Amino acid sequence: MKLYKNPDKKDWSDLVTRPTLQKKELNEVVQSIIREVKLTGDDALLKFTQMFDSISLDELIVSEKEINEAISAIPDELKEAIGIAKQNIKMFHQSQIEVEKVVETSPGVNCWRKSVAIENVGLYIPGGSAPLFSTILMLGIPAKIAGCKEIVLCTPPNKNGAVNPAILYTANLIGIKKVYKVGGAQAIAALAYGTASIGKVNKIFGPGNQYVTKAKELVQQDGVAIDMPAGPSEVLVIADATSNPDFVAADLLSQAEHGADSQVILLSDNEAMINDALLELEIQLKDLPRKEIAKKALENSKFILFNSVEDCIAFSNEYAPEHLIFATESAENYLDLIVNAGSVFIGKYSCESAGDYASGTNHTLPTNGFAKSYSGVSVDSFIKKITFQKLTKEGIQGIGNAIELMAEAEGLFAHKNAVSLRLNSL
Amino acid sequence: MKLYKNPDKKDWSDLVTRPTLQKKELNEVVQSIIREVKLTGDDALLKFTQMFDSISLDELIVSEKEINEAISAIPDELKEAIGIAKQNIKMFHQSQIEVEKVVETSPGVNCWRKSVAIENVGLYIPGGSAPLFSTILMLGIPAKIAGCKEIVLCTPPNKNGAVNPAILYTANLIGIKKVYKVGGAQAIAALAYGTASIGKVNKIFGPGNQYVTKAKELVQQDGVAIDMPAGPSEVLVIADATSNPDFVAADLLSQAEHGADSQVILLSDNEAMINDALLELEIQLKDLPRKEIAKKALENSKFILFNSVEDCIAFSNEYAPEHLIFATESAENYLDLIVNAGSVFIGKYSCESAGDYASGTNHTLPTNGFAKSYSGVSVDSFIKKITFQKLTKEGIQGIGNAIELMAEAEGLFAHKNAVSLRLNSL
Repeated sequence: MKLYKNPDKKDWSDLVTRPTLQKKELNEVVQSIIREVKLTGDDALLKFTQMFDSISLDELIVSEKEINEAISAIPDELKEAIGIAKQNIKMFHQSQIEVEKVVETSPGVNCWRKSVAIENVGLYIPGGSAPLFSTILMLGIPAKIAGCKEIVLCTPPNKNGAVNPAILYTANLIGIKKVYKVGGAQAIAALAYGTASIGKVNKIFGPGNQYVTKAKELVQQDGVAIDMPAGPSEVLVIADATSNPDFVAADLLSQAEHGADSQVILLSDNEAMINDALLELEIQLKDLPRKEIAKKALENSKFILFNSVEDCIAFSNEYAPEHLIFATESAENYLDLIVNAGSVFIGKYSCESAGDYASGTNHTLPTNGFAKSYSGVSVDSFIKKITFQKLTKEGIQGIGNAIELMAEAEGLFAHKNAVSLRLNSL
Repeated sequence: MKLYKNPDKKDWSDLVTRPTLQKKELNEVVQSIIREVKLTGDDALLKFTQMFDSISLDELIVSEKEINEAISAIPDELKEAIGIAKQNIKMFHQSQIEVEKVVETSPGVNCWRKSVAIENVGLYIPGGSAPLFSTILMLGIPAKIAGCKEIVLCTPPNKNGAVNPAILYTANLIGIKKVYKVGGAQAIAALAYGTASIGKVNKIFGPGNQYVTKAKELVQQDGVAIDMPAGPSEVLVIADATSNPDFVAADLLSQAEHGADSQVILLSDNEAMINDALLELEIQLKDLPRKEIAKKALENSKFILFNSVEDCIAFSNEYAPEHLIFATESAENYLDLIVNAGSVFIGKYSCESAGDYASGTNHTLPTNGFAKSYSGVSVDSFIKKITFQKLTKEGIQGIGNAIELMAEAEGLFAHKNAVSLRLNSL
């Protein structure tokens, strides 16, 4: 970890730069996987599952028996916890549904937008060391609220050909009927182009390793929509003398344990707070099961002292963090200054874990500075808004001449003629 | 043009397929242009402008003098027409602004979303045969309503080094201060990476030829957001015995004149309507200044007879047209059946030209079937929604245990610890 004191503004652009991900080598590998899935469909999926997940499967779809076993396997208290999270996420996302507003822009010219669900969506849930069943809530609940007809879930099987029961339990709870045991780039290819068992979808959501990310990037070039570009997860904490260094350290670690490439940044106008948080970090780190991962992530972490909270916010805006924990007592006075962030956590009791699991906000958020132009996942991500318009006779009479003049000025006489014919008929 | 009668449903997927755009050869050319702009900045821009637009410029930025000359050059009646369009577009897009709603998902857990403008956006306006000043209204007005701080416009100069006065007039009317004389892939590269004269932007909007489209696709892979993937423009008209064949023909032609690759489709449950529209098409075509372009586009057009209006809609949903003109008297009874379309024009007086110019809806819409997953441009395109949350003591006490259990089940103990520390402090 590195400590900076009042870095010069001209050095900020270096400080906010994320490590570059190597992309070149990946490209070929992932392209060849996609090509094979397009060519041989399920055969390729089974082959790659054998190759990468070390299991030979007969069937890709998870059976009803497996789902029922998963439901029995989950302890009641975890079921209750998931239920609480589900309810809060549902409540927050339901509030995102918009009412249609018809706007009469000119007399007889009525225009409106209608939200219509994307028909087929695919959710990718990684397997591996942390079975992210919480991500199923974060993607499946807004998909259901939006009204997507078909929601398909892909997740890699373990070496025994099984899927983590918490994943199956949560998928079933949300009402996702089709869960397939397939992971990696091959899963993304299957969702993008379809195979005999897995239907093609219009949009693909979910986190993943660099193969998955690359595959999403490549299929996007073929017109399949994706939730957003991805990079390593990150947190930026702004703390001052009123913050609790134990909480700050815990929040930094909860990001660091995600992966060795996680980004962890602490900004403060108070040097003692930085030192206290650093000390506490060392203490808490010792007891963590994932301490080796967290240590690696912390090697690249940055602790920066600034002259003021305003400077901290200005730097944060330039960094555009996925998660911004604003852990000061006066945070609420500064919210209007925040222009780039995925999700903001205000005050000492709003830890990132709350938003990761159960407060109701979505945890699929823009990383890597993408918060400058992208939003996190919401119900909006699962719909498109179709515009409608209806002009009456009065409507076309009112604006017809303006259209004719503009079309003519653009040299588009057929556009003009479509109006002239109508005006002449009246 | 081809006529089909009640095509079998299994053949629909062939019928809705757009011609593939060659991409491979383009890739290298565009990549080398981007590379050079990244390396030598303005020098590369001036070099490519000399090469592709046949003009050697001293300065890229349009001067105040040029803008004032453009303002004088535009006839008053065109100014009035643009004013009417501006007012309607503003009114419709202003209605898209959302009010922040704070949702208390659990006692003491408050969550909300805030719309914040993307700070820097770039608009690309093609030059060439049709000076699309209307597109400046469609992109600039929502950008202004969203509150984007910096709006930069790039458009290629003509052989004399000038920009069409209607483009300069409209940009000035909207309040766009920075207009640069640069087009093609080099303009997109400048917007994406910045040069000495053109600042880097976070998101790039606007139509263009295949070089521009390819460049947008490539810079998107570097994390620069773009409005949407692009393809040739298209219209699908649904007509029945109640439709006016003259209007239908005019609407088809107003799409066909856009470009030789434009897609034009007519669906009907009435064979006489198709025949009448075809006859009328030939008549109207003769007088069009852009008839050679329109003729080429019509070579690939499809006229399809179906058994019912419902079948027409089902086919349209599978095609997912950019523009859907629903030209029947009973159209309004069927609107709920429409699931995939960019913009829908209802009844005999709602011609596409209205939405292209002055009704108030946006004309930057998803083509190439992307309407299945993408929306057209709106104020949403110029903002990101940042989520906020504030938990009180009561809030974390209420949901803390659920978070602990879920974090533990995902094997993320630092996530759990961030909550436990807080709960223990209370």
